[in-house]
Amino acid sequence: KGGKLLVLPGDHIGPEVVTEALKVLDIIEEYSGAKFERDFDLCGGSSLDKHKDSVTEEVLKKCENVDAVFFGSAGGPEWGTSQPNPESGLLRIRHRMQIFANMRPCNFASKSMVRRSPIKEGIIRGVDFMLIRENCGGAYYGNKIEEEDYGCDPWEYRRSEIERVVRVAGALAMQHDPPLTVWSADKANVLASSRVWRRIAHEVFDKEFPEVTLRDQLADSLAMLFITKPTAFNGVIVTDNTFGDILSDESGPPAAPGHKPTLGANSAGGVIGLYEPVHGSAPDISGKGLANPVAQVLSLAMMLRYSFNMHEEADLIEKAIANVLDSKEDGGLEVRTGDLGGKAGTREMSEAIQGEVKKL
Amino acid sequence: KGGKLLVLPGDHIGPEVVTEALKVLDIIEEYSGAKFERDFDLCGGSSLDKHKDSVTEEVLKKCENVDAVFFGSAGGPEWGTSQPNPESGLLRIRHRMQIFANMRPCNFASKSMVRRSPIKEGIIRGVDFMLIRENCGGAYYGNKIEEEDYGCDPWEYRRSEIERVVRVAGALAMQHDPPLTVWSADKANVLASSRVWRRIAHEVFDKEFPEVTLRDQLADSLAMLFITKPTAFNGVIVTDNTFGDILSDESGPPAAPGHKPTLGANSAGGVIGLYEPVHGSAPDISGKGLANPVAQVLSLAMMLRYSFNMHEEADLIEKAIANVLDSKEDGGLEVRTGDLGGKAGTREMSEAIQGEVKKL
Ligand SMILES: CC(C)[C@H](C(=O)O)[C@@H](O)C(=O)O
Ligand SMILES: CC(C)[C@H](C(=O)O)[C@@H](O)C(=O)O
Repeated sequence: KGGKLLVLPGDHIGPEVVTEALKVLDIIEEYSGAKFERDFDLCGGSSLDKHKDSVTEEVLKKCENVDAVFFGSAGGPEWGTSQPNPESGLLRIRHRMQIFANMRPCNFASKSMVRRSPIKEGIIRGVDFMLIRENCGGAYYGNKIEEEDYGCDPWEYRRSEIERVVRVAGALAMQHDPPLTVWSADKANVLASSRVWRRIAHEVFDKEFPEVTLRDQLADSLAMLFITKPTAFNGVIVTDNTFGDILSDESGPPAAPGHKPTLGANSAGGVIGLYEPVHGSAPDISGKGLANPVAQVLSLAMMLRYSFNMHEEADLIEKAIANVLDSKEDGGLEVRTGDLGGKAGTREMSEAIQGEVKKL
Repeated sequence: KGGKLLVLPGDHIGPEVVTEALKVLDIIEEYSGAKFERDFDLCGGSSLDKHKDSVTEEVLKKCENVDAVFFGSAGGPEWGTSQPNPESGLLRIRHRMQIFANMRPCNFASKSMVRRSPIKEGIIRGVDFMLIRENCGGAYYGNKIEEEDYGCDPWEYRRSEIERVVRVAGALAMQHDPPLTVWSADKANVLASSRVWRRIAHEVFDKEFPEVTLRDQLADSLAMLFITKPTAFNGVIVTDNTFGDILSDESGPPAAPGHKPTLGANSAGGVIGLYEPVHGSAPDISGKGLANPVAQVLSLAMMLRYSFNMHEEADLIEKAIANVLDSKEDGGLEVRTGDLGGKAGTREMSEAIQGEVKKL
């Protein structure tokens, strides 16, 4: 049990929250007997400073030779105009690892988080979907043109790129009985790439997932429906890189201390994956011990679940986090970081979570 | 005073709500002495049925020769697989008229609408921004490739396309004293077209609008911030066609019975514009007299304001609508359509608005 990890803490609050998440992993190792070998390296701004590149070929090679990459966050104002930018390190890792199916769940780990949502409780309560963002194609990769007076990003999809990502959605839907509904979000009323996407998605589902209902949903109107009736999409949503980027930011953070783990689900069991929290590197609060470690710890849970098949341990971590977040509501002490309206620091919040994990 | 209108009611509820909006225009004519010559024609599914095309060359020519086009809505399931699709009529009109700056306001006309938002009142109260969507370029136009196994939409921008739309944002900001802040939303951390957009936007503002603060905002994170702190963007937002499509659907409807008027602001005063409500053609309720006419009437107000410089009349219509929507809260009768939790039909709601316009 266990495996080889590459840990890329990244910039600013990245290292702060990654350190705390790894303490939770220590406890899990003890509890489960699993062993996780950990190699640490650079990505983003810290890599730019040392190697003049957002990620080195050496690190990219390492990514290919581990069981999972555990990523913090990259970027900050000090690399504002650098070429390449820190974020490109993450993009290159995703591409090298062929992390084509980026899984971005939207659900509530805890009662108190439902109440903290900017959206009214009656509307958001019970929301539970998995948004799968295609993450190696579309407008974010390919032959870009950047000139003085002209810029172009070809927004393109090939059959194979569409097939493999919608298959992940189909397989995920089939893990439930009865199977979950799958929505494919596109702009087939305007974009050629969306029309090809829509047609091929239906071909795959008709042939390979006849029991799963596949519905088409325009991406713009989904952005509205995420606010007005998000529970209508309980199930699986699969969409292209651009729409997925925007829609997952919309559905992620307000819903919960979100996590955006990424997963190249090419085979059951031996998946190599990349796990990263939803938030950025938060340069404004870095170095002060104020960052909320929850999203990074949730990414750890997702890593255990999807890369190491450790469902019990993943459940345990998620439950521990819910207990900490709901502690005040349940008559206990409040341990919450500033973003959640509390006064706790990173370490205090992390220790509360570790304590809960040990108890469970 | 007044001018020539081309009215394109379109499909399903389009004609129902356009008819009611034009009754409000009748009252305005009487009140102001302005005369609006009205020509009616087809666009969308109704044009497909009659002419086998979503819009004819004749109608496109007419669009170029009127002072404003008043548009209802296009589309419906009966034209599901037609080539071209009904929506393409609207896209072609926008392009022919060079409606490059599509203005999509987000604000609350009325107290009761603030309370009806899915977002908590404390967060949404006071939101007031104008989102300007570039609407003739980007991934929505250009040389698309659509093959059996491959689709591509070139997401491209030229200097001239960027300059003219960000100028509209600058000019709008300058109409206020002190000038409003302008946010330019892009994905310059990933897209070449966004990097060119960002650079040229700053060039234009530095040179032509030195008094206006221009801020860059990543489009994905804006989708999140629209929910968590929308009032932080009070002012003007300018963004490309794709981001604008998604972000305006997100900010439009939940905020208010929204309107999405479009405006090619090439010169003050003599602007030729296209005005359309935010909603679609709502085939599920069409023909039943149930549609809410408010968005179409708000589009009329916007037309009077931006194409005919009739600010007083536009204010008056907006005030009348607020009065009707708030009537119950103010101790009066409730007149609201089903989408707003009431029992009124299209005509009843429209008559209430007409009555208020007459009173004011
Ligand atoms: C940091 C950036 C390159 C990245 C993306 O655009 O994919 C981020 O926005 C995300 O959603 O993971
Ligand atoms: C109907 C469709 C073509 C249109 C668009 O994509 O521009 C609509 O979504 C809008 O936002 O006005």
